[in-house]
Amino acid sequence: MDASKTVLLAHGSGGKLSQDLVRKMFVGELANETLSRLDDAACFSLNGGRLAFTTDSYVVSPIFFPGGDIGKLAVCGTVNDLATAGAAPKFLSLAFIIEEGLPLEDLARVVNSIKAASSEAGVCIVTGDTKVVNRGKADRLFINTSGVGIVPDGINISGCNAKPGDIVMLSGSIGDHGMAIMAQREGFNFKVPVESDCAPLNGMVTTMLEASKNIHVLRDPTRGGLATTLNEIAAQSNVGIDIDETKIPVKDAVGAACELLGFDPLYVANEGKMIAIVAPEDADKVLEAMRRNSYGSKASIIGEVVSGHPGRVVLKTALGARRIVDMLSGELLPRIC
Amino acid sequence: MDASKTVLLAHGSGGKLSQDLVRKMFVGELANETLSRLDDAACFSLNGGRLAFTTDSYVVSPIFFPGGDIGKLAVCGTVNDLATAGAAPKFLSLAFIIEEGLPLEDLARVVNSIKAASSEAGVCIVTGDTKVVNRGKADRLFINTSGVGIVPDGINISGCNAKPGDIVMLSGSIGDHGMAIMAQREGFNFKVPVESDCAPLNGMVTTMLEASKNIHVLRDPTRGGLATTLNEIAAQSNVGIDIDETKIPVKDAVGAACELLGFDPLYVANEGKMIAIVAPEDADKVLEAMRRNSYGSKASIIGEVVSGHPGRVVLKTALGARRIVDMLSGELLPRIC
Repeated sequence: MDASKTVLLAHGSGGKLSQDLVRKMFVGELANETLSRLDDAACFSLNGGRLAFTTDSYVVSPIFFPGGDIGKLAVCGTVNDLATAGAAPKFLSLAFIIEEGLPLEDLARVVNSIKAASSEAGVCIVTGDTKVVNRGKADRLFINTSGVGIVPDGINISGCNAKPGDIVMLSGSIGDHGMAIMAQREGFNFKVPVESDCAPLNGMVTTMLEASKNIHVLRDPTRGGLATTLNEIAAQSNVGIDIDETKIPVKDAVGAACELLGFDPLYVANEGKMIAIVAPEDADKVLEAMRRNSYGSKASIIGEVVSGHPGRVVLKTALGARRIVDMLSGELLPRIC
Repeated sequence: MDASKTVLLAHGSGGKLSQDLVRKMFVGELANETLSRLDDAACFSLNGGRLAFTTDSYVVSPIFFPGGDIGKLAVCGTVNDLATAGAAPKFLSLAFIIEEGLPLEDLARVVNSIKAASSEAGVCIVTGDTKVVNRGKADRLFINTSGVGIVPDGINISGCNAKPGDIVMLSGSIGDHGMAIMAQREGFNFKVPVESDCAPLNGMVTTMLEASKNIHVLRDPTRGGLATTLNEIAAQSNVGIDIDETKIPVKDAVGAACELLGFDPLYVANEGKMIAIVAPEDADKVLEAMRRNSYGSKASIIGEVVSGHPGRVVLKTALGARRIVDMLSGELLPRIC
């Protein structure tokens, strides 16, 4: 069959082809006001309060990696998507698709991670499902978690809300998760081990929201990395975003791994980082709040929102040049989450 | 590896091994009051009202079958799980795991079914996710839907609430879904085609709840069939359940297919049927309400809840004998939903 008429790995990359598929086929067919916003979590009013609701399936390979496993990832990823709406995550669902033959011991280890991560994040797993498919019809273990959280009054955070003049900040170094998976997959042994940054960020977001209600956008740069996520926000808000390469932290080991393997850290996935776009008058307060949390201790201001070049992200390089940073096109690292 | 230490197909059957896995590993580790009830949907208070929340992954093979496809199933299954809590389904999430190489045309056809089913059920798809895995690492398409619904005031429906004296009713014939999948899988051509009963039952449940608030249990008998679901309720409520074989409708074509293939329709999956257990004084009203809905037009009273033999289901056979009907043990039909 003509490859252009089939689903490609790149349709799951989080980059351009993913966006095409989502926009044309899913949002096109199933359109409603909430879905069409394309935020990581949907927000709506129910019972007189506002709720956030989100879903993610996790297909990461291998299922165990330095710094975490598919279970920790499944809790943190969904908790963080709720946090990007400014919501306090409350309840998670947990659905397993298991390949026949998975050692029960491995499943138990994953459940244990789920328990630890949900306990740290303060969420309850209230409902679940288990499916088993024949050997060779799945790859060990896939997990879906969906989550429900409460959006406090007065909070209105969305990828659509960035405004020229806003400050762009990042909670820490980029590329850790993607490079940890790659190193594990390829059997590399770095002198300084590269570990996934996988972590629940809802506690940090709570602290940030206590410091200021003028947080316009929160987004965790997962598949497609920082570059793709900033492009999404620039498109959703119809603004330009300028970032400064020298301000974006990359750990030495991660930088070295990226060089060795030919990856640009701007496109490598993170699972424990948050981008915040904040009104300029409150930027310092929010940055300080981020830094008070252990997951944000290395937070920094990396750029600003501008009215020029709407829909585009422009990087000032270490050498002072300016270049457009596009979304991820093609597939960089399949099955990173 | 020792097979007793690995996940088996039967762990996903909905029967005994499934229950063991869920009770020991999942509920054991992740215990909280809501999860431990083991209802199809979790109910909790949020923002001063009561919500229901549920999740299911769908791995049915083949993805297209007479009477439906994986998309229709994914909407109806989750809508029906919310309805079993007496909840009005409102919002669904939709997460795809796609095997590389799936024709986009097939995906579009599934999305179309999702659109039609969610429109019929009156639910909005508000959030989603798409993952793509390499060829051979999944089987065409898996879908997870999770759902949020509102539980009206004064409703308290749970598998734990059956009481001796209650009337057990069923909304129609059993075994249609399972036999439709089997026929499709095996390439059988029956003279009278067997079609899946896959349908959203929330409208019927609303009508039933308008007729009476004395509905104690609602449950859709999916994996494991009527026999397994009644056993679950008997265990949850610590009561006995007596049913009458002659009162349980089985379509001729389904009965014939079951005989041919050696299946007992009591264990075959349904995707558009509801069991209701109702206080005796309101049984007629609820039965009438069911029958007014097109999906319940063949509803009938099939038995009653008794105080004898707690935890057991006893069938009065067509010949007048009485036999214990156990849960499904082993795996009857893998990947039925």
